[in-house]
Amino acid sequence: MNSLPLTSRFVAFLLLALLPVNATLAQSGKVGDPLPSWNDGDARTALITFVTQVTTSGLPTYVQPAERIATFDNDGTLWSEQPMYFQLAFALDRVKALAPEHPEWKDQEPFNHLLAGDMKAFLAGGEKSLLAVVAAAHSNITTEEFNQVVKDWLATARHPKTGRPYNEMIYQPMLEVLAYLRANGFKTFIVSGGGVEFMRAFAERAYGIPPEQVVGSQGKLKYEVRDGVPVLVKLPEVQFIDDGPGKPAGIQTFIGRRPIAAFGNSDGDREMLEWTTAGKGPRFGLIVHHTDAGREWAYDRTSHIGKLDKALDQAKEKKWTVVDMKKDWKTIYPAPPAPAAPAAPVPPAAAPAK
Amino acid sequence: MNSLPLTSRFVAFLLLALLPVNATLAQSGKVGDPLPSWNDGDARTALITFVTQVTTSGLPTYVQPAERIATFDNDGTLWSEQPMYFQLAFALDRVKALAPEHPEWKDQEPFNHLLAGDMKAFLAGGEKSLLAVVAAAHSNITTEEFNQVVKDWLATARHPKTGRPYNEMIYQPMLEVLAYLRANGFKTFIVSGGGVEFMRAFAERAYGIPPEQVVGSQGKLKYEVRDGVPVLVKLPEVQFIDDGPGKPAGIQTFIGRRPIAAFGNSDGDREMLEWTTAGKGPRFGLIVHHTDAGREWAYDRTSHIGKLDKALDQAKEKKWTVVDMKKDWKTIYPAPPAPAAPAAPVPPAAAPAK
Repeated sequence: MNSLPLTSRFVAFLLLALLPVNATLAQSGKVGDPLPSWNDGDARTALITFVTQVTTSGLPTYVQPAERIATFDNDGTLWSEQPMYFQLAFALDRVKALAPEHPEWKDQEPFNHLLAGDMKAFLAGGEKSLLAVVAAAHSNITTEEFNQVVKDWLATARHPKTGRPYNEMIYQPMLEVLAYLRANGFKTFIVSGGGVEFMRAFAERAYGIPPEQVVGSQGKLKYEVRDGVPVLVKLPEVQFIDDGPGKPAGIQTFIGRRPIAAFGNSDGDREMLEWTTAGKGPRFGLIVHHTDAGREWAYDRTSHIGKLDKALDQAKEKKWTVVDMKKDWKTIYPAPPAPAAPAAPVPPAAAPAK
Repeated sequence: MNSLPLTSRFVAFLLLALLPVNATLAQSGKVGDPLPSWNDGDARTALITFVTQVTTSGLPTYVQPAERIATFDNDGTLWSEQPMYFQLAFALDRVKALAPEHPEWKDQEPFNHLLAGDMKAFLAGGEKSLLAVVAAAHSNITTEEFNQVVKDWLATARHPKTGRPYNEMIYQPMLEVLAYLRANGFKTFIVSGGGVEFMRAFAERAYGIPPEQVVGSQGKLKYEVRDGVPVLVKLPEVQFIDDGPGKPAGIQTFIGRRPIAAFGNSDGDREMLEWTTAGKGPRFGLIVHHTDAGREWAYDRTSHIGKLDKALDQAKEKKWTVVDMKKDWKTIYPAPPAPAAPAAPVPPAAAPAK
């Protein structure tokens, strides 16, 4: 702003000072409220203020649409992640489904424990056991077959606590943020530690995010022609882990621009928010803090899944917005789809015209 | 088409039979011709027919806009690649520019030969020498610094044959194809063996392709905070090579959808075209055949750079369109920018009003 003449700076200052109030007044009215599931509060105000700042032409904070990149973590930011990452629930189910084709697993750790239902013995194997199951569940299958396997699983598997399909345990308030940003010229990306092929199987329908805007962890792929038909086979080798410091690296490699807004919920998102908000001009970082044991889960500094410790401290220092789920969100999940309507009753015979 | 009722199939058949003629008549007229640098011929007709088929609603060949993905190789397909890949020319220049900071290179192969101007000795080192130079030119620098270094090079370096900046040696007819596809709802991607960061430094300005639609070979990146400022440092380690069978793998990992059209010029593009055109529904594959020794270069089956051998045979078998540069293209490069206009001469004194 230093290069602006004094008068312009003064006008800009006035506009900026007025923005939070105006924006809130304008946007939280009953008509056309873009964030109906958000309670009035600092988080909602900060988001609307930021969007207004970068989209109001004439303001020194204005950002060209091409640079309006927003990145979202998935697990714990766009959908739930307890009592285990949903992709791990998928992997466990998949190994059970594949067991008949792998008789050798009956005597092979960690598969034997899992198949015998001995979760305690299975989990005693720690990360090594989990990785073995994830590798078995995600590889030696073509990309097109895998996409269908994930879709079939989502159509039939149910979450142990809510009884709902996993892809309905997405956050209604975050769906509104995605739509609000897109309506304001943003391109919305997922940048998450989950497997890129796993997330793409549902991201477009669940979040309106197309496959080419999903960045995630990746296995290596092998191209081959089987009986004249080209296929890509998923190999059990890691190509890239999109977590922690891998997130800014993934953003650079896949998107090639620094986002102006980033949304996360755990220490795995810390570097993404740090990288995003260190850029020039207006920046927005947001942390979803899981504080709602009644409607969802409450966890942070000591949680095994979605640990939020260092990033919570840094949020204060860097002025990132912290969402208090219990206080800031009116609802957590979208309403379940209405059950199929019963056949319409036969209408009574029309009353004779009067 | 089997699920359509017979009448619809007949109508569709009629429409399709009429399309090539209609499309050519409609599109090659002087007014609003989207491909003015293309001579009438099979290549031009095939492209227009394909685009008309996938964009005409009501036809069984219609493709939803979201699925209209087109991928383009860069070297030899969108810009020239002789007498050496332009990125290699950049690497050689960069090593020379860095030499003062690396006194040890004077006694170290292959740098010593390059710095002494002994290209014969340098090239005798083969691929190993080239890789050493490429690694030195592309790493131990932040991504933002690298972006600037490439831009500075493009602004000053000149091609030895044409004397033009490298980023002006782009193919005018292909610029028209890119614009034509985008005007018809396509999303255009680069999928090339070149370095992703190198290409992004000019792709948006040269081709109108934004950074997030550039897929290329990648080095590993390291995230670190230097004096409180987060940076991404390019490491001299390869993460992914986007060439040959790596192209369909790169498309799947980065884009997550199979393209419906792919454009290449060498055997390194063979698998990309094979993967693209093996999908269901209408597909388009195009090979740029370098046949114009006068205006550009002529090379194919035995060329060291941009070898086109197996893919040329496969083009016939798979009915890919082969562009004969000499015959099909009216011009090769865009007209050079006009020199800065001289100061306008002082107009003669106005004639007295009659």
